Amino acid sequence: MIDLDRCRQLDADDPLAGFRDRFAAPEAGTIFLDANSVGAMPRDVPARAARMLELWVEQRRRGWTVSDWLEKPSLLGASIAHLIGARPDDVIVTDNTSVNLFKLLSLALRLRPERKVVLTEPGNFPTDLFIAQGLARYLGNAVEVRAIDDREALLDAIGADTAVVYLSHVDYRTSWRWDMAEVCRRARAAGALTLWDVSHAAGAIDVDLEGSGADLAVGCTYKYLCGGPGSPSLLWIRQEHQDREWPTIAGWMGHADLFAFASEYEPAPGIMRQLTGTPAVIADELMAGAFDIWREVPIADLVAKHRSLSETLKTLLEQECGDLGVAIDSPADYERQGGHIAFRHEHGGPVSEALLAAGVVGSFRKPGVVRFGLGPLYLSHEDCWIAAQRLKKILETETWRDTKYQKVSV
Amino acid sequence: MIDLDRCRQLDADDPLAGFRDRFAAPEAGTIFLDANSVGAMPRDVPARAARMLELWVEQRRRGWTVSDWLEKPSLLGASIAHLIGARPDDVIVTDNTSVNLFKLLSLALRLRPERKVVLTEPGNFPTDLFIAQGLARYLGNAVEVRAIDDREALLDAIGADTAVVYLSHVDYRTSWRWDMAEVCRRARAAGALTLWDVSHAAGAIDVDLEGSGADLAVGCTYKYLCGGPGSPSLLWIRQEHQDREWPTIAGWMGHADLFAFASEYEPAPGIMRQLTGTPAVIADELMAGAFDIWREVPIADLVAKHRSLSETLKTLLEQECGDLGVAIDSPADYERQGGHIAFRHEHGGPVSEALLAAGVVGSFRKPGVVRFGLGPLYLSHEDCWIAAQRLKKILETETWRDTKYQKVSV
Repeated sequence: MIDLDRCRQLDADDPLAGFRDRFAAPEAGTIFLDANSVGAMPRDVPARAARMLELWVEQRRRGWTVSDWLEKPSLLGASIAHLIGARPDDVIVTDNTSVNLFKLLSLALRLRPERKVVLTEPGNFPTDLFIAQGLARYLGNAVEVRAIDDREALLDAIGADTAVVYLSHVDYRTSWRWDMAEVCRRARAAGALTLWDVSHAAGAIDVDLEGSGADLAVGCTYKYLCGGPGSPSLLWIRQEHQDREWPTIAGWMGHADLFAFASEYEPAPGIMRQLTGTPAVIADELMAGAFDIWREVPIADLVAKHRSLSETLKTLLEQECGDLGVAIDSPADYERQGGHIAFRHEHGGPVSEALLAAGVVGSFRKPGVVRFGLGPLYLSHEDCWIAAQRLKKILETETWRDTKYQKVSV
Repeated sequence: MIDLDRCRQLDADDPLAGFRDRFAAPEAGTIFLDANSVGAMPRDVPARAARMLELWVEQRRRGWTVSDWLEKPSLLGASIAHLIGARPDDVIVTDNTSVNLFKLLSLALRLRPERKVVLTEPGNFPTDLFIAQGLARYLGNAVEVRAIDDREALLDAIGADTAVVYLSHVDYRTSWRWDMAEVCRRARAAGALTLWDVSHAAGAIDVDLEGSGADLAVGCTYKYLCGGPGSPSLLWIRQEHQDREWPTIAGWMGHADLFAFASEYEPAPGIMRQLTGTPAVIADELMAGAFDIWREVPIADLVAKHRSLSETLKTLLEQECGDLGVAIDSPADYERQGGHIAFRHEHGGPVSEALLAAGVVGSFRKPGVVRFGLGPLYLSHEDCWIAAQRLKKILETETWRDTKYQKVSV
């Protein structure tokens, strides 16, 4: 049993509690449980935007040389490296997740030229699957995208023909989390690479790319990482692979000597060669609001807070709403859970809509799953209590019958 | 001879004069002649930023469904279609120019599978060359990137082995402009495609992709188009080619049914399949400031204004500074000139630096070329007069001897 006092006690003991005030407060009473879609905005972002627009007006083209516009992709990457178990020099923030998946999947195939199979699961996030299918088609189907639904069968299928095991660390629907180290161990033993999409993990749970023996990773930055809607994506490559091939998309920002204006491409050393064209200057400046905060957040505290929020909310959902048709869909074992908690309800769509009307912003996935994404820096245990109470009231009074079915969301 | 009165008369007769006030005024006295690098900021961008950040705080994940975040790439494309001679449905704004060059060059090679030559010039913009070199390398050098310096020789080299003629409409150094229609005619006659980079043309000069018979085009939006530093790039495909192949980067935003969350890729009809991942939501909203203005600008007025500014400034530079070592480097014939005017001076670097100190923001390219990029919506003929007078004074008094050599710029 967890009661409100217990929630408040957990909040009083929370070493990250002070970060809540670094984020802009929404309209009073609204609880945002949608970090799996769009994380909260740091309070200083409007001031950053104003400074950035002033640079646009007053500096114009001088911005390229007097400011850090062209260094932001690596500065931002270094700021969140510790959250994903990466060396600061091995991460950049650039392009969007789909483009980065394309870059790294094509790199993986070059690094394993004699192997033809991309091994994935049919429930991987759509864009991950599509990028693989598109690349295979471009390469004249010399590559096979093999999607295996059963997890054990997938691991057993890793073999001498496997170029890369291509998975999302966390399932975007159920929040099921792969054991990254175990998958990497199995892949390495067979000589295969691993490419991870950490979109539904980074900034919430313990992601340890180096320690797990992963090879390649990309991830969304506007979910738990709070980079802002559509902010550029993170890209990581294990150091030993960085210099082995040219980037597939060989743009000028990845050239060894950017301002030489050479006519022959020469890749920059290390991760920087994966930069393409001009960085998203304004988006980068705004995402620095959150990324400057992340530099101060110890990964151990982050993980402990996310685990505590997750276990509190799961317990509350079962305790308060279990008799009202709510069944937790995400893994009971926290070590197998990702950034969000998913629960099923027979009328999930209308219930999710009623939650919105009651100031609890979750999201819905067909056919009946409601997702609560937990942003550890700005949510409290008391928020979990309030959300569960509001859900309970909706189910008891059946106010969900008055709502329209909502559109699905990213 | 042009004098100040004549400049003021030209401004009084300028049908676009009213647009100047739609852009934020810089610090008094500064004249920005750097539209070839970063165009001016529309006055309403700060208000757009504030609204956007409010959406981030208050709407969060609901922004995906209640706002036009996912429609912006096509809405923005339609807003500037008339400036590049395109149908509104054939242009999107997405990713950066390098990524878009990769997409369209790889598409061109798929559309001409039996042809192996990408024909370009060694003075093409670096990222254009690099993208081609990188793609050729990725394809195991089954493709040859043939760069020919002499323009007539390049046209003569278009042959049965040419897959695509791959050029920048305007040279980023000299401002020399290709006759797009002539190149397209020669390419078509040989069965080759054309891929144009209109970065140093769109928003300044007459670009007519449809009328010229072009096949594929990309372009930067933060130069003359005033989209803001690092704003997403424009991508155009002639309608007949749009549905013939899958996109090389097959992301979920290019899927036929975005919210089906399918496991099999099915390309969206038309240009939309070239979208990749999540759009740059905030950047898109800010660039809408300029793109909403462009919808009101007739292309004929734009071209007339740019021509008038160009001819005025060239005349003034020769008239006022010709005896002081200034030699126009850009084409004398306006029909062969692009967005900027380039002039040589023995001490171009220090002169460019002294111009900056005097409030005239141009840019410099080694070894001695100064570039003045002319943004037709916010520059006046009087601005050209003032800039020429300041340059004259710098050269007469040799104040450039007091400056440090400046870094080059984008």
